[in-house]
Amino acid sequence: MKVIFNDAQRRHDPKFFLSSGAPRPNPEQPARVDRLLAGAKAAGLARMEPVEHGLGPIAAVHTAEYIQFLDTIRERWARIDGASEEVIPNIHPDRRGGAYPASAVGQAGYHLADTACPISEHTWESAKVSAWTAVTAADEVAGGAPAAYGLCRPPGHHAFKDLAGGFCYLNNSAIAAERLRAKGAARVAILDVDVHHGNGTQGIFYDRGDVLTVSLHADPVRFYPFFWGYAEERGEGAGLGANLNIPLPRGTADDAYLEALEAALKRIRAFAPDALVVALGLDAYAGDPFQGLAITTEGFGRIGAAIAALGLPSVLIQEGGYLSDELGDNLASFLTRFRDAHGKQG
Amino acid sequence: MKVIFNDAQRRHDPKFFLSSGAPRPNPEQPARVDRLLAGAKAAGLARMEPVEHGLGPIAAVHTAEYIQFLDTIRERWARIDGASEEVIPNIHPDRRGGAYPASAVGQAGYHLADTACPISEHTWESAKVSAWTAVTAADEVAGGAPAAYGLCRPPGHHAFKDLAGGFCYLNNSAIAAERLRAKGAARVAILDVDVHHGNGTQGIFYDRGDVLTVSLHADPVRFYPFFWGYAEERGEGAGLGANLNIPLPRGTADDAYLEALEAALKRIRAFAPDALVVALGLDAYAGDPFQGLAITTEGFGRIGAAIAALGLPSVLIQEGGYLSDELGDNLASFLTRFRDAHGKQG
Ligand SMILES: [Zn+2]
Ligand SMILES: [Zn+2]
Repeated sequence: MKVIFNDAQRRHDPKFFLSSGAPRPNPEQPARVDRLLAGAKAAGLARMEPVEHGLGPIAAVHTAEYIQFLDTIRERWARIDGASEEVIPNIHPDRRGGAYPASAVGQAGYHLADTACPISEHTWESAKVSAWTAVTAADEVAGGAPAAYGLCRPPGHHAFKDLAGGFCYLNNSAIAAERLRAKGAARVAILDVDVHHGNGTQGIFYDRGDVLTVSLHADPVRFYPFFWGYAEERGEGAGLGANLNIPLPRGTADDAYLEALEAALKRIRAFAPDALVVALGLDAYAGDPFQGLAITTEGFGRIGAAIAALGLPSVLIQEGGYLSDELGDNLASFLTRFRDAHGKQG
Repeated sequence: MKVIFNDAQRRHDPKFFLSSGAPRPNPEQPARVDRLLAGAKAAGLARMEPVEHGLGPIAAVHTAEYIQFLDTIRERWARIDGASEEVIPNIHPDRRGGAYPASAVGQAGYHLADTACPISEHTWESAKVSAWTAVTAADEVAGGAPAAYGLCRPPGHHAFKDLAGGFCYLNNSAIAAERLRAKGAARVAILDVDVHHGNGTQGIFYDRGDVLTVSLHADPVRFYPFFWGYAEERGEGAGLGANLNIPLPRGTADDAYLEALEAALKRIRAFAPDALVVALGLDAYAGDPFQGLAITTEGFGRIGAAIAALGLPSVLIQEGGYLSDELGDNLASFLTRFRDAHGKQG
């Protein structure tokens, strides 16, 4: 199995985000990359560079309006007298079907769901290369590899088709799923094990029956992203029944998590997908700064083995997981057990 | 004509708002009150205290969910570790028909449209008394006075039924209109001359045919509130055709403004209302810090005289208008010419 990554993904360097109204250091730091690369190496993965793919695979998921916004906003924002260093929204529409303002401030409110996705000098470049890493991982699997690991940073699962949020700009997992479909997989399942609900991924495929979206996460009733991730959200139109949310009580540990995961895997088996994308957040860790769930390093290995037992061609996409001494160990634990169990299946 | 005001409306003292992502001193300062009281006095208005009315007339406009939020959020927010002094939102839903989170942070994002409506110790008290000032002004007019001036502070026209925004918490103009209806006026027109679009007022009555909403304001394409205020917004359902927006080019001065106002007054005459509410912002002033339009002190007098020529029982509700040396003079100019012309009609 390969780990895909390019150093341009380090350049995005967000300084702040507002948490409960107060500015705080942004935890989505470039230093995460070193821990994750070490974890992939410890699991024996060989490194591979992402292939540059232009905007095509990104535009398969995100709107032209949004891509143009991400490409231009930094420069337009800098021209505003007294504007902040990072692009941060300060007004939001009550409904997104209304008018689309011409001003940078209005568009920032339209395309940024929260204050945890500041845009600075290298954001767009890093986000694009992160998306190409996802595309390259999907191409590996479409080309016959049983699995590939895309070390995507910045992460993506909180990004909707035209809306950034929660440290995410481009939805790498959705981009990988669309790439698999373009390469011949008729049905794709996305399994999101990040501690936060994959609201962007859900939103992108909410009315579609060809991509199943499943997310296990800390109950959003008092946890980010607050407005999405409830069990009642089951999809709509052609997508009704193709979205499964499993909110878990705060502090849920390994055994209870593995039991909930079995329900998620059962749904994926019923969907009979041709390929799987795992939105691989590691912030469900007991020692993660977000303190949502209480998975151990050993627990991540068990999760990896259980997912591998599906026996599906699998694209693993890095999502969250923040600085702790065990971030690399947790990835290594997941990847090692995943690969061992996956080999037995395949 | 009376000016209605109580000193509790001074207590709300917001410190900051984010503008283009950067914290700035909040311009909706208690000192505005002294200038406005001086202007009302110069125009010969006698002062009257608002009557306490409980939550009834407020709940006629705003949802129970929102009222409970305003009543409790300050205390709940203060219990969050490391939260900001003022309640400020940092995440917003993409659609307001979704889930309603239990957390203070989630609810702040749900009920606060932007970062210009911070909630601090005295906000709820001042907002309630400001609403009672509007109710008392409406009662004066319902009781036979040709007109009354409610010195409402904080202002209200950016507040929707369940959404604060732009220095506004409770929609005093909408509350006055509902009060007039409850006292027997079958049809009420609201004319908003604040430099900003009256988006909350529009939203509250958007699907209703019994209250006409008309707003003249600086074009929102590059001006707050960005997402609302376009000429295409004409109401919906029973309210279709009962909303008129007249966006004006930035820097529009007296003569062009008065011409646009005539179109607004023509629409109001066609609606044949029983009473009028004027959302009386004074921030269209050429010297106002917001620099949206370029009305002169004399211009405000002409606007007052033109509105008075409708010959309708009129409740004047203070909206925006920020600190400049002429803030009181502008109010006096409006009130004097309004009263003189109104007397001639009545
Ligand atoms: Zn996460
Ligand atoms: Zn205003």
